[in-house]
Amino acid sequence: MHEECGIFGIYSKERASVAVSTYYALCALQHRGQESCGIVVNDRGVLKCKKELGLVNDIFDNEALNKLGDGKMAVGHVRYAVGDGATSHSIQFMTSQNSPPMAFQNTQPMVVRHIKGPMAIAHNGGLVNASALRDEYELKGGIFHSTGDSEVISYAITEQRVNAVSIENAVELAMPRLSGAYSLLVMSAKKLIAARDPNGFRPLCLGELPNSAGYVVASESCALDSICAEFIRDIEPGEIVVISEKGIESIRTHCTKKGELCVFEFVYFARPDSIIEGVSVQHSRNTAGRILAREHPVEADIVIGVPDSGLDSAIGFSLESGIPYGIGFVKNRYIGRTFIQPSQGMREDSVKIKLNPIKETIKGKRVIMIDDSIVRGTTCARIVRLLREVGAKEVHVRISSPPFLNPCYFGADVNSRDGLIACQLTTDEIRARIGADTLGYLSLDGISKVAKGGRCDFCMGCFTGKYPVEVPDEKPTNKFDMRFSEV
Amino acid sequence: MHEECGIFGIYSKERASVAVSTYYALCALQHRGQESCGIVVNDRGVLKCKKELGLVNDIFDNEALNKLGDGKMAVGHVRYAVGDGATSHSIQFMTSQNSPPMAFQNTQPMVVRHIKGPMAIAHNGGLVNASALRDEYELKGGIFHSTGDSEVISYAITEQRVNAVSIENAVELAMPRLSGAYSLLVMSAKKLIAARDPNGFRPLCLGELPNSAGYVVASESCALDSICAEFIRDIEPGEIVVISEKGIESIRTHCTKKGELCVFEFVYFARPDSIIEGVSVQHSRNTAGRILAREHPVEADIVIGVPDSGLDSAIGFSLESGIPYGIGFVKNRYIGRTFIQPSQGMREDSVKIKLNPIKETIKGKRVIMIDDSIVRGTTCARIVRLLREVGAKEVHVRISSPPFLNPCYFGADVNSRDGLIACQLTTDEIRARIGADTLGYLSLDGISKVAKGGRCDFCMGCFTGKYPVEVPDEKPTNKFDMRFSEV
Amino acid sequence: MHEECGIFGIYSKERASVAVSTYYALCALQHRGQESCGIVVNDRGVLKCKKELGLVNDIFDNEALNKLGDGKMAVGHVRYAVGDGATSHSIQFMTSQNSPPMAFQNTQPMVVRHIKGPMAIAHNGGLVNASALRDEYELKGGIFHSTGDSEVISYAITEQRVNAVSIENAVELAMPRLSGAYSLLVMSAKKLIAARDPNGFRPLCLGELPNSAGYVVASESCALDSICAEFIRDIEPGEIVVISEKGIESIRTHCTKKGELCVFEFVYFARPDSIIEGVSVQHSRNTAGRILAREHPVEADIVIGVPDSGLDSAIGFSLESGIPYGIGFVKNRYIGRTFIQPSQGMREDSVKIKLNPIKETIKGKRVIMIDDSIVRGTTCARIVRLLREVGAKEVHVRISSPPFLNPCYFGADVNSRDGLIACQLTTDEIRARIGADTLGYLSLDGISKVAKGGRCDFCMGCFTGKYPVEVPDEKPTNKFDMRFSEV
Amino acid sequence: MHEECGIFGIYSKERASVAVSTYYALCALQHRGQESCGIVVNDRGVLKCKKELGLVNDIFDNEALNKLGDGKMAVGHVRYAVGDGATSHSIQFMTSQNSPPMAFQNTQPMVVRHIKGPMAIAHNGGLVNASALRDEYELKGGIFHSTGDSEVISYAITEQRVNAVSIENAVELAMPRLSGAYSLLVMSAKKLIAARDPNGFRPLCLGELPNSAGYVVASESCALDSICAEFIRDIEPGEIVVISEKGIESIRTHCTKKGELCVFEFVYFARPDSIIEGVSVQHSRNTAGRILAREHPVEADIVIGVPDSGLDSAIGFSLESGIPYGIGFVKNRYIGRTFIQPSQGMREDSVKIKLNPIKETIKGKRVIMIDDSIVRGTTCARIVRLLREVGAKEVHVRISSPPFLNPCYFGADVNSRDGLIACQLTTDEIRARIGADTLGYLSLDGISKVAKGGRCDFCMGCFTGKYPVEVPDEKPTNKFDMRFSEV
Repeated sequence: MHEECGIFGIYSKERASVAVSTYYALCALQHRGQESCGIVVNDRGVLKCKKELGLVNDIFDNEALNKLGDGKMAVGHVRYAVGDGATSHSIQFMTSQNSPPMAFQNTQPMVVRHIKGPMAIAHNGGLVNASALRDEYELKGGIFHSTGDSEVISYAITEQRVNAVSIENAVELAMPRLSGAYSLLVMSAKKLIAARDPNGFRPLCLGELPNSAGYVVASESCALDSICAEFIRDIEPGEIVVISEKGIESIRTHCTKKGELCVFEFVYFARPDSIIEGVSVQHSRNTAGRILAREHPVEADIVIGVPDSGLDSAIGFSLESGIPYGIGFVKNRYIGRTFIQPSQGMREDSVKIKLNPIKETIKGKRVIMIDDSIVRGTTCARIVRLLREVGAKEVHVRISSPPFLNPCYFGADVNSRDGLIACQLTTDEIRARIGADTLGYLSLDGISKVAKGGRCDFCMGCFTGKYPVEVPDEKPTNKFDMRFSEV
Repeated sequence: MHEECGIFGIYSKERASVAVSTYYALCALQHRGQESCGIVVNDRGVLKCKKELGLVNDIFDNEALNKLGDGKMAVGHVRYAVGDGATSHSIQFMTSQNSPPMAFQNTQPMVVRHIKGPMAIAHNGGLVNASALRDEYELKGGIFHSTGDSEVISYAITEQRVNAVSIENAVELAMPRLSGAYSLLVMSAKKLIAARDPNGFRPLCLGELPNSAGYVVASESCALDSICAEFIRDIEPGEIVVISEKGIESIRTHCTKKGELCVFEFVYFARPDSIIEGVSVQHSRNTAGRILAREHPVEADIVIGVPDSGLDSAIGFSLESGIPYGIGFVKNRYIGRTFIQPSQGMREDSVKIKLNPIKETIKGKRVIMIDDSIVRGTTCARIVRLLREVGAKEVHVRISSPPFLNPCYFGADVNSRDGLIACQLTTDEIRARIGADTLGYLSLDGISKVAKGGRCDFCMGCFTGKYPVEVPDEKPTNKFDMRFSEV
Repeated sequence: MHEECGIFGIYSKERASVAVSTYYALCALQHRGQESCGIVVNDRGVLKCKKELGLVNDIFDNEALNKLGDGKMAVGHVRYAVGDGATSHSIQFMTSQNSPPMAFQNTQPMVVRHIKGPMAIAHNGGLVNASALRDEYELKGGIFHSTGDSEVISYAITEQRVNAVSIENAVELAMPRLSGAYSLLVMSAKKLIAARDPNGFRPLCLGELPNSAGYVVASESCALDSICAEFIRDIEPGEIVVISEKGIESIRTHCTKKGELCVFEFVYFARPDSIIEGVSVQHSRNTAGRILAREHPVEADIVIGVPDSGLDSAIGFSLESGIPYGIGFVKNRYIGRTFIQPSQGMREDSVKIKLNPIKETIKGKRVIMIDDSIVRGTTCARIVRLLREVGAKEVHVRISSPPFLNPCYFGADVNSRDGLIACQLTTDEIRARIGADTLGYLSLDGISKVAKGGRCDFCMGCFTGKYPVEVPDEKPTNKFDMRFSEV
Repeated sequence: MHEECGIFGIYSKERASVAVSTYYALCALQHRGQESCGIVVNDRGVLKCKKELGLVNDIFDNEALNKLGDGKMAVGHVRYAVGDGATSHSIQFMTSQNSPPMAFQNTQPMVVRHIKGPMAIAHNGGLVNASALRDEYELKGGIFHSTGDSEVISYAITEQRVNAVSIENAVELAMPRLSGAYSLLVMSAKKLIAARDPNGFRPLCLGELPNSAGYVVASESCALDSICAEFIRDIEPGEIVVISEKGIESIRTHCTKKGELCVFEFVYFARPDSIIEGVSVQHSRNTAGRILAREHPVEADIVIGVPDSGLDSAIGFSLESGIPYGIGFVKNRYIGRTFIQPSQGMREDSVKIKLNPIKETIKGKRVIMIDDSIVRGTTCARIVRLLREVGAKEVHVRISSPPFLNPCYFGADVNSRDGLIACQLTTDEIRARIGADTLGYLSLDGISKVAKGGRCDFCMGCFTGKYPVEVPDEKPTNKFDMRFSEV
């Protein structure tokens, strides 16, 4: 499972090396998307953009940052290419990398020119009505270069902008048209605008630069830490924050509810050192592990976590159960996006190459293994087998979230029920399939408590099938490529 | 002076290696644009695109052509980035190459997705109402990713396509909205459509593949030669040619006149082995040289041409005058787009690095030097000095076109009268400035006869200031970047 | 501190995809060197080589591995460029990357052609007499292309090879000339030879491919795991292992002692899942933590480790002391070799970008922080400060090795006493300098017990100044570049 | 047929941008080798090197030249990879480009470190005893990284250098060991040394920088022109020129004869604007054409040359015969080294893509076509057919050199008699094979007169089989890879 994106924006009161700060912040957000990255610097109204497929650390070197130059504002984006992989697209772009056909066109920030001024847009989320809006704009004569939501959002804003009194007013007027999840940054010639959908599905927070030098907005607070900015607060569900020469202003027209943050941000997506809606991500994982220990106790010799997101839950489980915590795997940190998968016929095993169990620690032990989720079940089965191969006496799998039963429409790349093992097998059948001695999932009640004390409610649609907004019957990934009937 | 573009399209009755054929054809058209190139292959309705900054031979290797794969149709494009160099743009894209800020975004073919099906567009020319159309589309909510005319043309076609009975009908309905020069290729899921503006400013011709395997359309006939296709005919000014399963059809609604081809195609832009509107380009240059010899005779020992476009005129001059032809320069063929210009303080001389006079041939001689045009005069002055440095006794400059007095609005990169030496000095003053003993331009009467026997008239607006279509007062290159007044 | 290299060799009885296996094995050894990597495949006597600056996963894609093709043998190498950084070299190679001037020339494996057949050499270690040997060979007319030890070793072998009865005999005869550390692989047209210096400073182990398909040799057993090879045994100090059509043979002429393995392999260099000389690396680190807890107990609320090598020791400390283990930092996994360091004037902090403390876990706590070593002290001081900034009440630093007091001559990049904080300050002064409340190093006695039960003794020269072989007075890094007196 | 190399050296009295001057000079010498290029700058004894596969203009951008920096000396090299293409090599290096296996290793200048100081070597030519010397050095324990002659020359110089009183003395002592062709540059820490073999097979000339700022040495005088250096004189056969702080000194120990320059330098290799041994290359080609017209007169309507080297001869033929000269072909200037050859099954024709005949000029005419040589005959046959396809009534082929009957051992890539059409067929059979109406070669007597007035004699071994130095029975291209018998 993958998160779609991470976003960052900076507004400095004086001209400064905003590209470099954005570079560090994007490095800190890289876990939210590793396929492409981009930075747009705004220097006195001129928007300079560089975006590419690849990691922040690979794409932006000194020369690239120098070319982007200084300015008062910048926005940056990291992306995981959800849904771009589909080869059914009617248009495919061939890049030198071995990437999905629309990967390059869908890189963000999107930069558009318009009679009212240029605009850069970066967002994280997923619209449920993107396809319907696209149809509507195309029937009015609009043309699309990408398959991503950001071009749809651009049209929605531009549509209003022609008549709106200001760019922030255009955003405000456009928001009711957009249904679903979006944490959004819009940079115009003179303003940096941040907005969060009324449900607040994805996180977005506001910080201040040292010495009151300006403001930053980021998907997660860990990006603020990386540039020594101070966390001010989360942006509220539905809120529009406008940063300009006049300082910070808020538009709260669409702030109608408490919000339903994606609970998977705590389970998996966010970095443990981030604090979201008042709750430490690491602490929420410790809590998940503690609740798991109470819900599914078992006698064992050691508790281990599947790196990286299982580690904190494993420590929680260990603390609650009194069973010692151990490091059970070495994760290979040098294997990246372009890693060559072993072919069918080879004896090599891609799971083992990435995640080697430590024999000394496992051998002869009754092992409790904590992971964050089971999607298709194949990786989990492989990991259990690796533990048995190095001599685990028993393997007890504990999952720090409930069974995954429904697609996500709000920015995670689970498009349909196909392939979700929990849709097809009972828990005991899954246990047998993955080869565990016992298997326990965190309960729905349990997951609802992991971020207790936080300021918002949660979207748990992937577990319950109940979504905070109306969703289409079938997730319409590439419908728009199938529908044309050319004459 | 630079031409903007070259275009090529192929329709094969059977699935074939159309990408490879397009590669060869674009190599043959490379002289029309060296900044970027692109190929879009259409395989059963799926459009696969690759476009990049660089030469065809560098961008497309075996791997790239394999990725594009086979299909029944393809369009290709080579481009010289007219006007992209302006640094006043409000949006700038940083590429790894040292290119103009919009160069990558403006690469062609442009590929757009639309509810009525995907579409690839490649064109050569220049619209005089691009800016006005852009304003209009933006005020309707349209957004632009590029600064080029092709996105404007895309909007014009899409605007009609929503209601048109077919893609070719959309092109037909869009043409009256487009004012200026365009030789255009539109590839939809099932059709290849070629169109030429009613004035026929830029060339476009139709050919047939060997063994009646299909059809091709190209800016110049030399591209047909490169793939052994047979020349059928020029596409008429205003004509729309539709190639599909049904074969070739013509729409002649807009064929209202004989056409006014840019005369500079004969003087400079086109390759000598091309035949345009029934006239051999090489022959027209020979003719220009012959007329020059009659209009501006002079006693001399040798006639030399400035490579490459001056060579054929020099031979014509030699044949007419009886003065021996010689090769006066070695042109360095290995210096490309990325050549490092000598800095001010250095003793090296960029003209000499590119064009070394051959002392043995020049020394002690009275030399007639033929060039195609004088724009700013600096290069010409430098060349004359080089000839004197190696011992030319006299240097008589003959120009195979009349003085350049007016901007071109139709696809050549002369934007204004600023810098045109002929706007500021008399011919004798120019002669003095470039250091020649005598200077003679081809007369207006002369230039009108170089392609005698051709099927069309000529646009000679750059010489006369009289243009076949109404032109704006001032060429509005980047107006659209200046006009916004953001709130 | 950095290790110099990792090596891997494979001998398959049948022609197989040995390049791909080497790729996976090098990925598993990547922690031993991240600057360059190389693979040489031997297909029926033809040696095909690819080596580059960069990570294995970046340099070797499908195309590269296909070009290397199949074969029966391969050797691979990963390298950290020890000493190449010196800008005093008299020869410097400019690569497109921002690398030390000799980095490319020093990539391994080194491939040389010779009248007795081609040869590929890969090694890990450091010779103490490299400079003397180099002088000797140059005075005989030899020429050097690199500054690395591998070219010296090549000369030493070639010198013998001219008269030796076999390649293994040449290696055997050359070994007495080489003083210092070397774990060595030599691949000739028909044989794969592995050798380890008589002190066995660096690890080297032998494994068997699944289904008895052949043999492999690797720096660490984790590389064997990655390709599902079975660990057979460590290669003995002084042993030469010859793998050929005849199977495996051993030459033990130089096996004169038990060996003195670099103890830092356990402390820091090796991967926790490797087993060296019979001891699990992870277990040795747990043990170090346990001993530390006994040697330097302190009351505290939490034990945290500095990732990655401090984690296992922290768990050992926690288990021994009963103080809970916690995850105190998030290490950014996406920051690589080319990371842009914040400039002096910037507010960003490179330590914090790489290693963010988790406020929730640290705040208000008395923290025990375990790290593997203190070299210059600056990073440690910075980390302690970060902990205090997020609210640590007390910070107790525990180091899982004794104070670093002497240079290493055997493959780690500590060239001199300059900059070693322990050479200049007392432990209490260091404590004050790094800002810790207490500071405790593992004792010499303690370090000698971390791998108790192992089959060898240890080199602890960096702590004691007593080395198993005679070392030069001053480490002569680049002497050879300074000594020439040209006429 | 291809020339192997071009070389350039510069010695500036003051520290200057010698890398940039070398860049321009190498651009001017690019016709002598297009596969790889390299520049070594010497800044106060530190040699900085960059060499790569590719064209000068592509490899050296501003960043690369900046990295090389300023200095007082530099040497540069362009190379065509003669013989590297052989796939029989026992060692093969895989580069990202599709290049011969040893191409990268054989790039020049070769830079070696040695106890007597670093040294950079660049040469043009071919040794006849390279293989024997290589054997000798390997049997003494030497190791080779490349297959080129430059490493052999390095060994020969180093062998002497250990005992020589100076670097120039080492060169002087080494020369008698080297048999064959070499125009050589050696740059040490403090001196730039140029040497030419006693036969003077390959050209080498000396020039002075403007304002007496220093000296340059180049393969051809056109390189001097490109940086506005003044031609002083050719370096004599056997001469060693030493440029140092003391100015220019000559060592003439080996100046024993008048020299035998490769006559093909005039026919094909050199640039027309170069002057070699007192003779203009262009003039020699004009002369060849004039002699051809006298030796093989024929009635015709037009004389055309095959670009580029046939053009000057065609003009000579035209002037002598009175038959008008015309431009018969357009050569595609944008097709480079990496051009994709049409596959067998395709209808495209690689000759036609590169060289399109101009129908208008050829149609209905009796054509005399001048080319410089016929090697295998296939290209010539294809060109004749192209002329007939566009309507030539008669095609009379005239070759500006005698039939090619013997291999070249001195730096041109004709390795054996295999494939030389003149070894297998009579002139009339060749005429029939290439489809010409008549065929005439320049006579041996004729070729001996093309550079009449020059200061040297010629090597015409490729025509006569009589070589100025003893040559091996069979050209031993890759013998060294076949001979080993490994134990």
